[in-house]
Amino acid sequence: MDKQLSPVELRHQIRSGEFSDQTSGLCPGYTQANLVILPKADAYDFLLFAQRNPKPCPILEVTDLGSKNLHTFASDVDIASDFPKYRVFKNGELVAEPTDVNDIWRDDLVSFLIGCSFSFEASLITAGIEVRHITAGTNVPMYNTNIPTKAAGKFHGNYVVSMRPIPQNQVVKAVTITERLPQVHGTPIQIDHPETIGITDINHPDYGDAVEIKDGEVPVFWACGVTPQAAIMASKPEFVITHAPGHMLVTDVKDVDLSDIL
Amino acid sequence: MDKQLSPVELRHQIRSGEFSDQTSGLCPGYTQANLVILPKADAYDFLLFAQRNPKPCPILEVTDLGSKNLHTFASDVDIASDFPKYRVFKNGELVAEPTDVNDIWRDDLVSFLIGCSFSFEASLITAGIEVRHITAGTNVPMYNTNIPTKAAGKFHGNYVVSMRPIPQNQVVKAVTITERLPQVHGTPIQIDHPETIGITDINHPDYGDAVEIKDGEVPVFWACGVTPQAAIMASKPEFVITHAPGHMLVTDVKDVDLSDIL
Repeated sequence: MDKQLSPVELRHQIRSGEFSDQTSGLCPGYTQANLVILPKADAYDFLLFAQRNPKPCPILEVTDLGSKNLHTFASDVDIASDFPKYRVFKNGELVAEPTDVNDIWRDDLVSFLIGCSFSFEASLITAGIEVRHITAGTNVPMYNTNIPTKAAGKFHGNYVVSMRPIPQNQVVKAVTITERLPQVHGTPIQIDHPETIGITDINHPDYGDAVEIKDGEVPVFWACGVTPQAAIMASKPEFVITHAPGHMLVTDVKDVDLSDIL
Repeated sequence: MDKQLSPVELRHQIRSGEFSDQTSGLCPGYTQANLVILPKADAYDFLLFAQRNPKPCPILEVTDLGSKNLHTFASDVDIASDFPKYRVFKNGELVAEPTDVNDIWRDDLVSFLIGCSFSFEASLITAGIEVRHITAGTNVPMYNTNIPTKAAGKFHGNYVVSMRPIPQNQVVKAVTITERLPQVHGTPIQIDHPETIGITDINHPDYGDAVEIKDGEVPVFWACGVTPQAAIMASKPEFVITHAPGHMLVTDVKDVDLSDIL
């Protein structure tokens, strides 16, 4: 497809059913967002979970009750249609993967847009730091850890982290670059020594794909947006909708403007 | 009183009724916090208001439902006793200013600790920037503005700002120093030109005391923690408890550690 589409043009194609693939690499420079939709009855606990755990769960925007619109991250947007693919869970079980959720929409739903690491990966690459899984064309490796989140109401669990191998002489730069983007997970939470955070086999990630760690490189771990989804699933909520992995909302906000907006 | 008390020793004195004055200047280096206590029925809207307006309403910690304890900012703490003075509002009207709210506590209450500018003022002074109202021994001047907050449920209103006169050649330094403390309002929202944000008479603040602006200085405006209280009062909630101005909770967390905790 034409990678030069504007975000709103892409959302129109997705809304019409013309496009339903992953969004990686589309509309470069624009912020993409993860999605969690919950009934209002669970929304306070989840918002509090996010407030208490801002590194794995950076909230970009929360919709008004029952609304499919946004105030800040996009105009001409339909939360129920503009993600290429959704996942619907009932009592913790995946029951459907539709490309539109208008037919199951409820007036008591609240939608949470959550930052993803796409933005900081672009910044790392711009700074001359190779992002191995992008070079390899695979998914980022992600691991369960022994680091507890701060529980909130019914939501609890451990951090999930993503890992990128970084040359020793670029680790400090990787820290300072990601420090500037707290809206998309910010600084790493562990440099090297994966056993310290409960990772026993770096070559077998719990999610995503393994990547090569070359001589002179160390694994660097960042808080991952899978953490809130894992915490939600563990509580087996009556009803939750998320995006399908990689099938993000492309917003009207440029990565470079995130710090002015949030 | 002995200014060298530790935060927990001071809280014990407050809890026992031995101390009920303002906390300005006490336990230097430790973070002090504003308070808003609301029934759970209003808590989601208020947490969302804070999420949407992080500059005027930086949340430090939210208690569990009905709890008087904290997980992060203090141990050995009693939210209902450890502020020197409280304000109780019913349907938007001030009905009492007690030094303890245990007798009116309810199991459906949630307490929000909100950052205050004490921390960044200390940083400004350390950097060699005079803070005029501290020199003068008066309250900081605060003004209503025409800058709208982002509404959330029943809560809405305009920003309230605080003002400090800064010499022209120190304005950039004041920006960069406060940028490092987003938990306590962060960067200014307006430099000079008060009329742009709806302030018509700089010498008559809406709250606090006027200060002298000397030749070569410009007024610099920061988002103010009065904003969330003003938004709450405007909605006339059934029941709300706040701290009395200046009568803060002194926490166990040092200002310099804020960025590691939040």
